[in-house]
Amino acid sequence: MCGIFAYLNYCVPRTRKEIFETLVKGLRRLEYRGYDSAGIAVDGDKKTTTEDNSKIVLIKKKGKVKALDEELYKKDCMDLEVELDTHFGIAHTRWATHGEPSALNSHPQRSDKNNAFVVIHNGIITNYKELKKYLNSKGYEFESETDTEVIPKLIKYVYDNREKEDLSFSTLVERVIQQLEGAFALVFKSHYFPGEAVATRRGSPLLIGVRSKYELSAEHIPIQYNSGLFKEGIEQDKNSHNRPDKPDNSTAVNSVGDGKAVEYYFASDASAIIEHTNKVIYLEDDDIAAVVGGKLSLHRLNSLAGENPVRAIQTLQMELQEIMKGNFEAFMQKEIFEQPESVFNTMRGRICFHTNKVILGGLKDHLKEIKRCRRLIVIGCGTSFHAAVATRQILEELTELPVMVELASDFLDRNTPVFRDDVCFYISQSGETADTLMALRYCKDRGALTVGVTNTVGSSISRDTDCGVHINAGPEIGVASTKAYTSQFVALIMFGLMMSEDRISLQPRRLEIINGLRILPDMIKKVLTLDNKIKSIADELYQQKSLLVMGRGFNYATCLEGALKIKEITYMHSEGILAGELKHGPLALIDKHMPVIMIIMKDACYTKCQNALQQVTARSGRPIILCCQDDQEMSKNAYKTIELPHTVDCLQGILSVIPLQLLSFHLAVLRGYDVDCPRNLAKSVTVE
Amino acid sequence: MCGIFAYLNYCVPRTRKEIFETLVKGLRRLEYRGYDSAGIAVDGDKKTTTEDNSKIVLIKKKGKVKALDEELYKKDCMDLEVELDTHFGIAHTRWATHGEPSALNSHPQRSDKNNAFVVIHNGIITNYKELKKYLNSKGYEFESETDTEVIPKLIKYVYDNREKEDLSFSTLVERVIQQLEGAFALVFKSHYFPGEAVATRRGSPLLIGVRSKYELSAEHIPIQYNSGLFKEGIEQDKNSHNRPDKPDNSTAVNSVGDGKAVEYYFASDASAIIEHTNKVIYLEDDDIAAVVGGKLSLHRLNSLAGENPVRAIQTLQMELQEIMKGNFEAFMQKEIFEQPESVFNTMRGRICFHTNKVILGGLKDHLKEIKRCRRLIVIGCGTSFHAAVATRQILEELTELPVMVELASDFLDRNTPVFRDDVCFYISQSGETADTLMALRYCKDRGALTVGVTNTVGSSISRDTDCGVHINAGPEIGVASTKAYTSQFVALIMFGLMMSEDRISLQPRRLEIINGLRILPDMIKKVLTLDNKIKSIADELYQQKSLLVMGRGFNYATCLEGALKIKEITYMHSEGILAGELKHGPLALIDKHMPVIMIIMKDACYTKCQNALQQVTARSGRPIILCCQDDQEMSKNAYKTIELPHTVDCLQGILSVIPLQLLSFHLAVLRGYDVDCPRNLAKSVTVE
Repeated sequence: MCGIFAYLNYCVPRTRKEIFETLVKGLRRLEYRGYDSAGIAVDGDKKTTTEDNSKIVLIKKKGKVKALDEELYKKDCMDLEVELDTHFGIAHTRWATHGEPSALNSHPQRSDKNNAFVVIHNGIITNYKELKKYLNSKGYEFESETDTEVIPKLIKYVYDNREKEDLSFSTLVERVIQQLEGAFALVFKSHYFPGEAVATRRGSPLLIGVRSKYELSAEHIPIQYNSGLFKEGIEQDKNSHNRPDKPDNSTAVNSVGDGKAVEYYFASDASAIIEHTNKVIYLEDDDIAAVVGGKLSLHRLNSLAGENPVRAIQTLQMELQEIMKGNFEAFMQKEIFEQPESVFNTMRGRICFHTNKVILGGLKDHLKEIKRCRRLIVIGCGTSFHAAVATRQILEELTELPVMVELASDFLDRNTPVFRDDVCFYISQSGETADTLMALRYCKDRGALTVGVTNTVGSSISRDTDCGVHINAGPEIGVASTKAYTSQFVALIMFGLMMSEDRISLQPRRLEIINGLRILPDMIKKVLTLDNKIKSIADELYQQKSLLVMGRGFNYATCLEGALKIKEITYMHSEGILAGELKHGPLALIDKHMPVIMIIMKDACYTKCQNALQQVTARSGRPIILCCQDDQEMSKNAYKTIELPHTVDCLQGILSVIPLQLLSFHLAVLRGYDVDCPRNLAKSVTVE
Repeated sequence: MCGIFAYLNYCVPRTRKEIFETLVKGLRRLEYRGYDSAGIAVDGDKKTTTEDNSKIVLIKKKGKVKALDEELYKKDCMDLEVELDTHFGIAHTRWATHGEPSALNSHPQRSDKNNAFVVIHNGIITNYKELKKYLNSKGYEFESETDTEVIPKLIKYVYDNREKEDLSFSTLVERVIQQLEGAFALVFKSHYFPGEAVATRRGSPLLIGVRSKYELSAEHIPIQYNSGLFKEGIEQDKNSHNRPDKPDNSTAVNSVGDGKAVEYYFASDASAIIEHTNKVIYLEDDDIAAVVGGKLSLHRLNSLAGENPVRAIQTLQMELQEIMKGNFEAFMQKEIFEQPESVFNTMRGRICFHTNKVILGGLKDHLKEIKRCRRLIVIGCGTSFHAAVATRQILEELTELPVMVELASDFLDRNTPVFRDDVCFYISQSGETADTLMALRYCKDRGALTVGVTNTVGSSISRDTDCGVHINAGPEIGVASTKAYTSQFVALIMFGLMMSEDRISLQPRRLEIINGLRILPDMIKKVLTLDNKIKSIADELYQQKSLLVMGRGFNYATCLEGALKIKEITYMHSEGILAGELKHGPLALIDKHMPVIMIIMKDACYTKCQNALQQVTARSGRPIILCCQDDQEMSKNAYKTIELPHTVDCLQGILSVIPLQLLSFHLAVLRGYDVDCPRNLAKSVTVE
């Protein structure tokens, strides 16, 4: 949901063209987060403004980042070759929440016609109506339909009303965010503070990359608390144009001092930073980061009890190639075909196939406590929720505990009773999903033990939970999640195996599952060889408007997830239907025209599924059946079959979802849509 | 799922025409249970057979009962005016489970070309393949694709192999059902046993009405156990053609003795019987009822521990007009408009609006036990499941217990852990829903306390649960459930109110809800006045293929239920979507062509729903919004609004579902479909 990228070069000469290229490349990496429209703000030059060269220029464009990129070079009024020793540029790719996609509604949003303050924002400001009303009453005029626009207006208002105080840029921002409700990651630029950057967050993710040819002098940055010891304007910072600012702490990351060259990258996630540097700082809620005179400092209004008073400078473990598309047509396709490896990586070092031991390092210290709980609540949104549905039964079986699965938004809406002896799991690929994160906070307040299952080290969920599992699937770029789903699935199964290690009666079952997991990557490879067959089915189906996917038991989640994939990227109205509910309504939809996919594996539900199949064929339905290899009964009754290798019942869903991932991909390509950038959607849903 | 009707007149002269009319009228009342095809079996006359007049004639027809009715009078070979002193006819209306709808697959199914045994069946025989294989190997040839056909073949096989034994008709049936697995209600007729009837059930409902101008001599019929005291062939019954039979117990219902006139009606439910008599006997699982020489007796193979050794002759409280359509176009429409009364009837005598006391008589003795439980599990299928979803939050709030809602089929598939300190609710309009009934048995085996919420006195669920609530909505005939939903909703709310009576902190909330319930019937009347407006919206939408219904919080269930109604009777692909999940996938479906209905009421989710609305309108969606009266904000952003009176948040779902019930009705009429008989569906789903 919106990608934020900003680039500050301090005493590192870059041409304007290079700066443009850096900003656009950053947006490209973040484009999966939103691609309704995009925009940048950079310093102007003599050509663009008759006044002075500190005037900020905004360039915004509806459409994808590519459209913005082309727009940049049309502005022939800008000198592309001029070298800028120090410069700060901000950029944004948008996923509309308030106001339709248009240049006007895209970011950066500005304070006034002179672009005194410009802001990029990821999140939603929930009290924007009240703020807008107030600012309107003070004579501030609004031009967009966004919630964001109140932010530059508000900082201008604070600036205009600063009276005698000589406020630093970061103090202005601090005052602004005290008025904001909702979720945000923000980066500010102002022509009153040239060469300076201020960034902050609450609820939405933001990290800062640091690159310098000089060694960084510290591994942590201490927080400066404004309410306590440090008062405004005690010291003068020579580098910041003789305006007062926070004292520059000598242990700050950047002690390259005056004149020492450094570059900073602000971004919504690490994929936009990794090609520049692997040194990053993750901001916490309400941290304010300010760069003044090339020095980065961190500020907070108040210290929280028990809070860590420093932020570590971390080293990213990501490889650049992990976020490149390679020979595939789309990231999603690449990620589908990566699943033999990604699933293997999820298990690596955690399952010992000789001793049949399963150890999830992040959970082992909490296992006793988890075993004592009275129920497990597994919470997620979208695909992550489906991973919970998929593993519910086997978790119930292996843990012998009641397991509830919950959509995070509904869980919150209902004010669901949560107790101190509950254990709550939070499933999120990005670890930043807003609803899931809010559910996490809700349960923490009620004293439940919290467990994160994420794919992103350093994400909010992985930091805020008591313990957790990192699924190690590698970066997922395609908006439609694929390999994260199968890895979440495997991670939850491993948790079940770990919980049941001490139960003698469950050993045969555990062994069967562990053996199934051992050969799972090879099984997935076999399923992937069906790609051509699935393509030919897509050729038949791609002009349909609707599609039903039916199954039950261990394969019900596959129906939900398969239908979601098809919805997301093909825009066909597909729906996952519990086969057991067929007679209670959905059967009315069946006739010879309605495309139906049924999942009928040889497990405990096989006979019941055959009943459902009978009901469908009795109404002239022509089902495409996902079934086990050489199931004669199925090929007799099916319009077409897709035959899958047979595995343990509780793992079958990992194999059965893959043909539907492939099908959705082929359908989307045939329908002419951009697989990685489905309309209206974005990867990491950081707003409610 | 299939309607069974049979009529035996003993010493009550009826013309063949009158018998036909009785059988067809019976099927008409049961037609909502299935209408793929229908058939009857009656005794032939000299015209139809050259052999003897005991030869049975089968008349079967694909299509509705009307088609069968026309067919009957085409058989000009039958003398319609001939008077039959004693006769037994059986009739069936089918909802196909195995084999497509056709005359051949419809019932009665027969033993052989001579129609020696004919059977009508409601349910599914799960081991029919094995039986068929066996009977095939013995030389019995099959003609249909049904599971049912094994039953007449099997009884013929038993008869053919009876050796020297002189077996009664009921003993033959007893031996047959020992071989059957699955669910069934069966009525048998045979030309070897003219004027006799045998009926039995397991899992599917069956009751017998008795009509006589003589006083019935007993209020109970004792069961005769075959394994114990009573041996075959001890006494000869003069009336049954000198063949041995069970002794005729002198306290049996029918002691009208030889020559005393009596009529019997066998039916799947009371609505087919009420116009003839209000004296009925409900059969229990594995009871065998036999009529020989005009005398009805009940048999069982084995006595079960603690079982009641008699079956009561009950008096139906139903009024005939309750099952008539009146001035409405369809039963469904009538039932929608009945909701002010049906909801009132659900509350009548249970809520005292002066003292704010709520007493559900069927639960009050178990309340202490329920309060001590560790969680509530609410189980249902289709619409009944939605009633559980709708009230989950308020039950969580008022009972302060964790509440799980479960689709019965999924609950069973998952072998969900259930514990002795769980309380399980079973919601079913008919009280016969097979999956729900199986879930009930599953939980009883595990020692949970079971609570039924049904609309049918004497139904399996109301009999087999520890306690329960009868929702008193009156008979519901329309296949798409409407008034049962709102009454289930109210019944569950009343349970919550009863549970919270003793909690001081909850009194303001209770009072608010009780006041809301007091004026609920009037509120519903107001909503019903919107019918014309909703009709005009239907005029715009009826040619669409898809329809999305979105909402969250207390109104999420309305989305699911509204979408189900539309699916069931309009065959449009409608789907209920949690508004909180919009960003996680379904938003991709939104463009200016996709019809969207949103439910946005002034409750705790109002702001969040507005966010969803913004997201929809930002993608050019044109939502029809169900909102509160005079909500300016909504009318500004909506394509159209349907304005509802405002009530307490947890009751709003009762009002918000009604416009969608009406909408589905109008859409179905405009699309030219039979509202009360949607294709492929049937009212009471008594098979898995």
